Amino acid sequence: MPSFKLTIAYDGAGFVGWQRQANGQSIQGLLERAMAALDGRDVAVVGAGRTDAGVHAIGQVASVTLERDIDAPALVRAVNAGLPQTIRVTNAVEVPAAFHARFDARLKTYRYRIWNGDVMNPFERAYAWHVPSPRLDERAMDEASRALEGRHDFAAFQTAGTNTDGTERTVRSSRLTRDENLITYEISGDGFLRHMVRAIVGTLVDVGRGRVPPSSMADVIASTNRARAGRTAPPEGLFLVRVDYDYN
Amino acid sequence: MPSFKLTIAYDGAGFVGWQRQANGQSIQGLLERAMAALDGRDVAVVGAGRTDAGVHAIGQVASVTLERDIDAPALVRAVNAGLPQTIRVTNAVEVPAAFHARFDARLKTYRYRIWNGDVMNPFERAYAWHVPSPRLDERAMDEASRALEGRHDFAAFQTAGTNTDGTERTVRSSRLTRDENLITYEISGDGFLRHMVRAIVGTLVDVGRGRVPPSSMADVIASTNRARAGRTAPPEGLFLVRVDYDYN
Repeated sequence: MPSFKLTIAYDGAGFVGWQRQANGQSIQGLLERAMAALDGRDVAVVGAGRTDAGVHAIGQVASVTLERDIDAPALVRAVNAGLPQTIRVTNAVEVPAAFHARFDARLKTYRYRIWNGDVMNPFERAYAWHVPSPRLDERAMDEASRALEGRHDFAAFQTAGTNTDGTERTVRSSRLTRDENLITYEISGDGFLRHMVRAIVGTLVDVGRGRVPPSSMADVIASTNRARAGRTAPPEGLFLVRVDYDYN
Repeated sequence: MPSFKLTIAYDGAGFVGWQRQANGQSIQGLLERAMAALDGRDVAVVGAGRTDAGVHAIGQVASVTLERDIDAPALVRAVNAGLPQTIRVTNAVEVPAAFHARFDARLKTYRYRIWNGDVMNPFERAYAWHVPSPRLDERAMDEASRALEGRHDFAAFQTAGTNTDGTERTVRSSRLTRDENLITYEISGDGFLRHMVRAIVGTLVDVGRGRVPPSSMADVIASTNRARAGRTAPPEGLFLVRVDYDYN
């Protein structure tokens, strides 16, 4: 009964998201189908985070336990052979049976990409949010983003929903940079509320447009009021970059 | 009757290539259709180079003359509105009527991308050639690629065809680098024969696999024999990066 920690990359376009659903193809559902074909029985695949429809992953992590005796390299080959090319298991390591991709996750890192130019780059159309002119003020956006660091109640950035574990989270790092027309935002934290990163990005774009000052970010957080934050940025710019654990 | 130099980026997947053809969608054909809708008459768009089916461009250049009086920014907006999102005119500048994108081109730069890892990166599946293990020797490949620099008869890298202007070309720069699993090859020259870059890349991969030594590249060139070079690498890894002119 070997257990594995899987690292998974996927192009989220065309999927209903990570989580298995009644209608549409999910990453989890396709992984479980490929695993079941390999193991000859139903297999549960547990993901570190539930990415929404259209959101991408470079380093999603999942845990799985199989009955069949198989080593990690053979598992990677066999599972990838049963998956569409838009989903790849990039790595597998054998772990103790107690390993749980979601409960054991210590830090998650998300990246959000914005194309800030009048003409969209055709190679970025599925991987960045197109925000045409005016030119966003990336220094103001970065300054605003720093206010998110630390332990806060992030209810202002949560899409209506109930979290059994409340709305407080710790953001370890929040940074925004620009390379010509491409703006890249990266945020690391111990957990994220539903649509939290995308609502933060929508708020940062309001700052970049000069609609609100960078200093307003602290007020938005303190308000715990979703109406005070910006719009939810579209899913195609968002990537789950990595998930860190105490071991591995 | 303003004339323009257009810079064009396109994702080549799904197109029959740059050149207008009887069947299938071409970049040139779609540009001419968008221009005709704008100008109210048939318009010829001349490209700097004819990229093949599936080949991408970051900086293709084309020339066009319109009857309608329009400035460059308005032209960019109007043409892009009539094109699929996979083709974008990224820039337009007004030029003398004598400007000819193909005849006036002085230097073209192509990039070829290879994903050299066992598991393909799902975000590279349409933008790189997947060459799994063994790990290619990028230093041997770069060494071999240097032999291409200078003026040579490149007939060994030409897909059967007749060039009215012979098979001699001057390569100004030929360089190969690696960043983890991604190998990037860039070549600049005054002109390229049909499939030349892709045949060079196929030959470089043979060098990288250790099938032939780096020093053999000079012999392949000297042979002017297509059978001595490697296979033609697939189109999805190839990008026309830029075209340089004496002015603009």
